Amino acid sequence: MTDTTTPADGEFRIEHDTMGEVRVPASALYRAQTQRAVENFPISGTGLESAQIIALARIKRAAALVNGRLGILDDDVAQAIATAADAVIGGEHHEHFPVDVYQTGSGTSSNMNMNEVLATLASRVAGTEVHPNDHVNASQSSNDVFPTSVHVAVTDGLIRSLVPSLEHLAEALERKAVEWANAVKSGRTHLMDATPVTLGQEFGGYARQIRLGVERVHATLPRVAEVPLGGTAVGTGINTPKGFPQQVIAQLAEDTGLPITEALDHFEAQGARDALVEASGALKVIAVSLTKINNDLRWMGSGPNTGLGELHIPDLQPGSSIMPGKVNPVIPEATLMVAARVIGNDATVSWAGASGSFELNVAIPVMGTALLESIRLLANSSRVLADKTVDGLQADLERARAFAESSPSIVTPLNRVIGYESAAKVAKYAVAEGLTVREAVVALGFVERGEVSEEQLDSALDVLSMTHPN
Amino acid sequence: MTDTTTPADGEFRIEHDTMGEVRVPASALYRAQTQRAVENFPISGTGLESAQIIALARIKRAAALVNGRLGILDDDVAQAIATAADAVIGGEHHEHFPVDVYQTGSGTSSNMNMNEVLATLASRVAGTEVHPNDHVNASQSSNDVFPTSVHVAVTDGLIRSLVPSLEHLAEALERKAVEWANAVKSGRTHLMDATPVTLGQEFGGYARQIRLGVERVHATLPRVAEVPLGGTAVGTGINTPKGFPQQVIAQLAEDTGLPITEALDHFEAQGARDALVEASGALKVIAVSLTKINNDLRWMGSGPNTGLGELHIPDLQPGSSIMPGKVNPVIPEATLMVAARVIGNDATVSWAGASGSFELNVAIPVMGTALLESIRLLANSSRVLADKTVDGLQADLERARAFAESSPSIVTPLNRVIGYESAAKVAKYAVAEGLTVREAVVALGFVERGEVSEEQLDSALDVLSMTHPN
Amino acid sequence: MTDTTTPADGEFRIEHDTMGEVRVPASALYRAQTQRAVENFPISGTGLESAQIIALARIKRAAALVNGRLGILDDDVAQAIATAADAVIGGEHHEHFPVDVYQTGSGTSSNMNMNEVLATLASRVAGTEVHPNDHVNASQSSNDVFPTSVHVAVTDGLIRSLVPSLEHLAEALERKAVEWANAVKSGRTHLMDATPVTLGQEFGGYARQIRLGVERVHATLPRVAEVPLGGTAVGTGINTPKGFPQQVIAQLAEDTGLPITEALDHFEAQGARDALVEASGALKVIAVSLTKINNDLRWMGSGPNTGLGELHIPDLQPGSSIMPGKVNPVIPEATLMVAARVIGNDATVSWAGASGSFELNVAIPVMGTALLESIRLLANSSRVLADKTVDGLQADLERARAFAESSPSIVTPLNRVIGYESAAKVAKYAVAEGLTVREAVVALGFVERGEVSEEQLDSALDVLSMTHPN
Amino acid sequence: MTDTTTPADGEFRIEHDTMGEVRVPASALYRAQTQRAVENFPISGTGLESAQIIALARIKRAAALVNGRLGILDDDVAQAIATAADAVIGGEHHEHFPVDVYQTGSGTSSNMNMNEVLATLASRVAGTEVHPNDHVNASQSSNDVFPTSVHVAVTDGLIRSLVPSLEHLAEALERKAVEWANAVKSGRTHLMDATPVTLGQEFGGYARQIRLGVERVHATLPRVAEVPLGGTAVGTGINTPKGFPQQVIAQLAEDTGLPITEALDHFEAQGARDALVEASGALKVIAVSLTKINNDLRWMGSGPNTGLGELHIPDLQPGSSIMPGKVNPVIPEATLMVAARVIGNDATVSWAGASGSFELNVAIPVMGTALLESIRLLANSSRVLADKTVDGLQADLERARAFAESSPSIVTPLNRVIGYESAAKVAKYAVAEGLTVREAVVALGFVERGEVSEEQLDSALDVLSMTHPN
Repeated sequence: MTDTTTPADGEFRIEHDTMGEVRVPASALYRAQTQRAVENFPISGTGLESAQIIALARIKRAAALVNGRLGILDDDVAQAIATAADAVIGGEHHEHFPVDVYQTGSGTSSNMNMNEVLATLASRVAGTEVHPNDHVNASQSSNDVFPTSVHVAVTDGLIRSLVPSLEHLAEALERKAVEWANAVKSGRTHLMDATPVTLGQEFGGYARQIRLGVERVHATLPRVAEVPLGGTAVGTGINTPKGFPQQVIAQLAEDTGLPITEALDHFEAQGARDALVEASGALKVIAVSLTKINNDLRWMGSGPNTGLGELHIPDLQPGSSIMPGKVNPVIPEATLMVAARVIGNDATVSWAGASGSFELNVAIPVMGTALLESIRLLANSSRVLADKTVDGLQADLERARAFAESSPSIVTPLNRVIGYESAAKVAKYAVAEGLTVREAVVALGFVERGEVSEEQLDSALDVLSMTHPN
Repeated sequence: MTDTTTPADGEFRIEHDTMGEVRVPASALYRAQTQRAVENFPISGTGLESAQIIALARIKRAAALVNGRLGILDDDVAQAIATAADAVIGGEHHEHFPVDVYQTGSGTSSNMNMNEVLATLASRVAGTEVHPNDHVNASQSSNDVFPTSVHVAVTDGLIRSLVPSLEHLAEALERKAVEWANAVKSGRTHLMDATPVTLGQEFGGYARQIRLGVERVHATLPRVAEVPLGGTAVGTGINTPKGFPQQVIAQLAEDTGLPITEALDHFEAQGARDALVEASGALKVIAVSLTKINNDLRWMGSGPNTGLGELHIPDLQPGSSIMPGKVNPVIPEATLMVAARVIGNDATVSWAGASGSFELNVAIPVMGTALLESIRLLANSSRVLADKTVDGLQADLERARAFAESSPSIVTPLNRVIGYESAAKVAKYAVAEGLTVREAVVALGFVERGEVSEEQLDSALDVLSMTHPN
Repeated sequence: MTDTTTPADGEFRIEHDTMGEVRVPASALYRAQTQRAVENFPISGTGLESAQIIALARIKRAAALVNGRLGILDDDVAQAIATAADAVIGGEHHEHFPVDVYQTGSGTSSNMNMNEVLATLASRVAGTEVHPNDHVNASQSSNDVFPTSVHVAVTDGLIRSLVPSLEHLAEALERKAVEWANAVKSGRTHLMDATPVTLGQEFGGYARQIRLGVERVHATLPRVAEVPLGGTAVGTGINTPKGFPQQVIAQLAEDTGLPITEALDHFEAQGARDALVEASGALKVIAVSLTKINNDLRWMGSGPNTGLGELHIPDLQPGSSIMPGKVNPVIPEATLMVAARVIGNDATVSWAGASGSFELNVAIPVMGTALLESIRLLANSSRVLADKTVDGLQADLERARAFAESSPSIVTPLNRVIGYESAAKVAKYAVAEGLTVREAVVALGFVERGEVSEEQLDSALDVLSMTHPN
Repeated sequence: MTDTTTPADGEFRIEHDTMGEVRVPASALYRAQTQRAVENFPISGTGLESAQIIALARIKRAAALVNGRLGILDDDVAQAIATAADAVIGGEHHEHFPVDVYQTGSGTSSNMNMNEVLATLASRVAGTEVHPNDHVNASQSSNDVFPTSVHVAVTDGLIRSLVPSLEHLAEALERKAVEWANAVKSGRTHLMDATPVTLGQEFGGYARQIRLGVERVHATLPRVAEVPLGGTAVGTGINTPKGFPQQVIAQLAEDTGLPITEALDHFEAQGARDALVEASGALKVIAVSLTKINNDLRWMGSGPNTGLGELHIPDLQPGSSIMPGKVNPVIPEATLMVAARVIGNDATVSWAGASGSFELNVAIPVMGTALLESIRLLANSSRVLADKTVDGLQADLERARAFAESSPSIVTPLNRVIGYESAAKVAKYAVAEGLTVREAVVALGFVERGEVSEEQLDSALDVLSMTHPN
């Protein structure tokens, strides 16, 4: 982001607000309150996520149009604000939003930053003075606008970015599930040899985890898409004209194409931010799913000679600055780090979510930033994982089958023929003597004694059929 | 729980399993494998939650009946197991489940504990030897049974314990919302004086938070109620007769009256425990909601003379061992500690949920215990909060109204008459000079100059009407 | 714990406190305030940890003696209280402490429970009425006594339980480090074949992690052992005689043999509970260490035929209710679940630690319970891990060496002979053609071209010497 | 950061590495492996923290000098690398480090990025080809270099940035403690009126919390400043010349002026990252301290008319876009959000810290970023809090004293005159009848009955002396 706060030419102009005069860089679109905030919060050096800046502008646009329609603003002022907002929605002027994330907990400084930038732009369009508070912020308060911008940006991110990426990943996993439907391998429980499964069954399970992640996201949307807009200062809707909340939300829903709805209770909707905590919880589950899947991938790809070696993970880059020829599972590792960050962001969001008092939560900016970051990281890493790792996975089918056949747990079907305790003897004997299970059954005399027939053995010990027993 | 592991009479009997002989207390219903586990895991001194013991017994009952129906077990053996299970379901013999929570991560020891206890009991009923593995555990594995028992117990706890308690609390809050519908008070944002609200609006918001908590729980149920039963060792259903998974789950759903369904993908259902992480996330949101509500209650009840003093919280017990006559908000504090525990349990569940590899998660017992504890704590504290605190709250209506009228933010409606900047001057002047807003408007000459009329002032500055502006 | 709250004989007596009359079970040693608390907090069904009950009694004992010495109590009353406290310290009467953990956040109910039980016992000893507040609680407040009891119990648990257990585990690991000092194996980074290490080096690293855990615990002690006792209600020490804080803490330090010190600032010491958060953080690091170590153990023990199979983990119990003969790494799994719980408890403690206002934190009981549970779980599982798993580990030395020799990364020493890029060619060629690194070097003509000599190869490719290159 | 990855002029050059050819922007100082990483990890859009880039360059500088000294590198090559590193240490060329944080978990890509940039720069200096691996990375591996860079940057940040900021804040709080040493006010426990304290005592407590935070940081340094450098690939130090580890760390310690030491056990030092988890835990305690302090400040500043109003927090900016004249505690709110982030970062670091296997943790980049962010946020917000809020706080001394005198808990000193139960009657009567405690004592006849004299009352009820009872 270009730094607009220290003008290269050293030129400033004087702006004022209700507290007095402020020096603002001459070229800045923003005004006094933004400048105060820039000076008050030199903390992280990072501003709001772009997605939230756009969502704020969308709200201002919708509010201006409805204010115009309801006679609160002159039509030309309303239209000028909408035009100004369109530029920001289109990605312009984002360098004029320098306010730090770590600011006032209501996001008032960022709301005023938007009010000031749009006032400046709209004044140019309208050829008349448009006021940040009296016009751009008309019928609004930071207390309803700012949290609404988080919910809109999050809803958008979930629906348009995360869900498609997860579906893309699920499809990649499902293709592998089909490809490897009959690729028999040893199951592992407690990391120990278990009865056989197919690689396809495992990848089908991973795909299902991701599909369930999509369901989890969808399950939160009715509450995440409920917005406080219209409640203004404390939820009562003071200083809004009759009909404003309904119309502005309808306008916003139409403009964005998102399933935005008005909060059923505006006091809950401003006093609490629980739906954001809920959304973050859903992202945490996805992070947990990705952790499990990527750990499995890493272990199946471990080796080439001292690990499990069931899968070959695509070579993307040299793996070591000292060990020549080494190739590592770099995308799964990156994804695991994303999971760690998402888990941490969930702790941040929960902590912040509990910090409200009476009519307002005062940790909204950090909730917005953490959630939008989590969405972005999960969406990007899921897509990269699908394209650069899952798609290119190759299985060592022979090795996998050999493992399946070597597992002493393939004795399990014999439970129903010779009983659990005799079967245990067979398994232990096989491991101790380095025999196959079939050899151990014979060696221990079960066939000789007629307790099991050769045909029963053939049928019971077929590893592929053990993966689809019924 | 009576300790069954060190017999008072010092008498033991010898049991054996596939690893050899074991000394078991003579009076114990359990056998060798339970005894090994008792000796292997002297870690926490605490066993499974009762709700999970009951859920395990329910599964054994359903499995026995279906095994009987499908010819895997003789009818009398099946029936004897069911009879034995009924006793445990009814609350008997729980002292014979001494295995620690911190055991093998699959819960195999607890599954075997149940198999052994039921085998002993069923043998007595049937008058024939019932085997823990070959009969009680027939067509099952710890790997599908144990996680199923967690999902069943959690589903039951959510539906039959937590949701009714939350609804009970919501109703108590809603009664207060009605009672105080017109009890005007000062709104507070950033803890600073804001425009008026009613106490009823605040309590309506709290009730809505709790109602949304119920929605959140319901939103997770489709996945929480999906169980792995039928997948046996690795999800393939090895060693189950055809039709077993469907029938056993139907039986379990019927017996419990819960919306239990078969996992759509048995590999996901055993390799991952994501739905438990999701359920825990919903509980975390409820904990966050309760934190906000109880902090508000504590602050409104603060005083009697040096705090806000808007509410009187019922006196339940002397508050101080040194300061005589002091009474404290003890139930809100207890509830806040419950919230802290639920937040911690969620971290435990997430950490455990990420610990699976291949065909099995191996941190299931701690997930079950943490989740069932969270459900129990939230259910009990919500009920206590409703009955011992919310129901008995009394408002100091005069004080609340006086606060509302003293807030400089009631100047807000004048924005639309004299503009934001002039209104700011009024508010600051009022605070600085100790005037009411009305007095400040007059003192600053707005009436004299005709910028606002007395009638406009009357209408604009009525605090109750500010709470319902449209 | 025997339930004292519902008398089997149904007999009650009437007690009173400053709020009026209360029915108390006739046999209870406690009185009115305890009974109120029992009725007010039917939440978890669990009381304080025994270690904290003992610590509370220790404080009462020290306070009584000092009060006697300073003339606040008659000598016989003081002595009677000390005698009563000794019984509780010795483990008697713990069933008379039925108050739930989830109570008032100051622990006042538990402090009064102790005051009442000791008053009853001391009255019997003294043959005169000893008053819970005026005598047992003399010169004290819950607000200094209760947090002090947590710090004393935690300090004791850290020094006398956790540290020795960790040292016991470290010693077990160190014995293995010595035993396997020359047991060469393949290193693994990113789970991929790396240059060789010895098993002894790995176990030395684990031991060092545990030793550092001990250092971490010690690093927190100066602050954890600082106690608020003497500050009474709000930190000012109101209602204490001159010299009381210093003398009571000296007495307590002497009685317990612990390095207890008086808080340097009593306002910090009652307003905040930061040192408990710090202690919990140290426990969290130990949980993280144990997670890493146990995952390594589980992977090295994976197999027997489809895993890494470098270690054999002792067989403690049958591993599967369905797969005969299976043996699982049950103690490492139990320890991993302990780690998950400790991580969760840390979240609880942090959340609770942030919940103070002005002169008091009000989430102390849950902090005490969570911390003492974490200490107990870590101490017990570390000891069990040492005795039942580490001590009995057996290495497959041949397999380990074969892995070391098969790793393509053993080409690394050749970097300095033929350069990183040529070495990379060798490694890739070896993997692709199934050759050893030595064979690949020859096959690619490096020897023929004189770029490396046979002697250089011998020396460079010796796997054991690669583990101690200098 | 200027984007170097998509050249404005569209010009590229061809580079190669062991995997083949890569197109690199013509102007980039980096080469093939960096470019591969840029393409492989389009995840967060954010690279390493600047502090870590500088630390990496410092390590390269030290390694080059020692490699020169030990004959591994020619002197001119060694010197050229050092010169190149100096530029990066001085803040130049940071735009040539475009690799994402979410990359391979060892940070190999960032290590290679540094190797490549320095190779390019050093080649220009030396006038001969300097190789990224064979020269810049000589005697090193990502596996020791990258984690060392995190420890060095964190140690530097703790010592040179965080500790001075905390001390600056502590001093500001201590000045207020002195200023308000006799500013009596009501204590509050459970938010309820308690016995008096002084504002100075409260601020002294806050200062002590911060000073203890400094102690906590110092307590972790012996382990945080221990670095794995010298262990290369797996901890054995393969491919280092004799004496390298000791010399390179001595050089690094001298260059940086930091108390950097060599890891006592290189296998612990590469297999685990526990010391980073420990450092993060210390930061979490500081976040908890700041949460408590800032919540107290916010509540003392609440009002102006409907809150506690004991403090006036400096006005920094208009507080509301709708409520004119409102001023909010914006810096405390920003600091509370910082605390929420630090708490979340701690969860990330713990999660990542547990993710190692065998010879390497593979979540190091996210640990570095999270920790360095936490340090930066805490350091900046502590300084801003001191300068913009604490320094300008003004107390309403009259209001504070009036509160102290109105608290019914000032009856407490009478416990020792009339007993706890009578004192409780006085307190309740005073609250019920709206009397002062003195008036209630008289009204209830205690003076008349001679149970307490007027002089005793004067002495016992003096609120300021209650704050320093001994």
